[in-house]
Amino acid sequence: MRVLGIDPGYDIVGWSVIDDSLRVLNYGVIKTDPEKSFEDRLLYLHRGLSSIIEEYEPTVASIEKLFFQKNTTTALKVANAIGVILLTLKLNEIPFHEYTPTQVKQAVTGFGKADKKQMEFMVSKIFKIKHFQGPDDSADALAIAACHCIRS
Amino acid sequence: MRVLGIDPGYDIVGWSVIDDSLRVLNYGVIKTDPEKSFEDRLLYLHRGLSSIIEEYEPTVASIEKLFFQKNTTTALKVANAIGVILLTLKLNEIPFHEYTPTQVKQAVTGFGKADKKQMEFMVSKIFKIKHFQGPDDSADALAIAACHCIRS
Repeated sequence: MRVLGIDPGYDIVGWSVIDDSLRVLNYGVIKTDPEKSFEDRLLYLHRGLSSIIEEYEPTVASIEKLFFQKNTTTALKVANAIGVILLTLKLNEIPFHEYTPTQVKQAVTGFGKADKKQMEFMVSKIFKIKHFQGPDDSADALAIAACHCIRS
Repeated sequence: MRVLGIDPGYDIVGWSVIDDSLRVLNYGVIKTDPEKSFEDRLLYLHRGLSSIIEEYEPTVASIEKLFFQKNTTTALKVANAIGVILLTLKLNEIPFHEYTPTQVKQAVTGFGKADKKQMEFMVSKIFKIKHFQGPDDSADALAIAACHCIRS
């Protein structure tokens, strides 16, 4: 099993690829250009994710399931991006599992209300990363991928 | 100018293709199978829309912009589908314009709060369709396409 972890968004998407022995193949972010049109950003996201899939050949994806209290423009844009992500996975025949933030925190730290620092600490420990580099979104993507391995 | 009108959704998408002299080329719905997985339905929608674009070669798209008062699961699923629709248009290099339901009603009937019956009456009149066939969603898609022609 090779897991693609995805922290969804339309401005920045965190991603990671790990195997079932919790070895990290790579991680990073797809950052879309805020000066481009929204549909250009969706296309960039689709192409970026397709390239990652082509390079690392994951067998399954693990995505954070988003909940929104209010139906803001941002929430709907993130939902638009999630549609593109799900289509991209389907076009590449990669099945996916969704986990809530609480499920991810629970799986990684044993505590569903863990804060960002606790999460980064446990991600570094699980994956034996001494100096974690990259934005929060890629740490989140590692945690999301780890969640799928730990739960399955 | 050849306009592709789209009434978005994830269960059923109304579509129409008209030209700028308000001649109807065709209209219909893409209906996804509720027994299939959500990602299968997104893929079906993507393929259906791609086929329509290939067959009728629209130069521009007109889409109804959705507003939701509450962030229900349905609202987020429709937003997921809209992401797929926008990506499909972008992959086919078709620019799009979004109109609110009020703008569509205003353009077609002259009255922003027109009801379904008034809308269907005006759609039949504008497009000289004697016996309108097909679900509401395709009548809406005709109105959305007409809205773009009338406003531009």
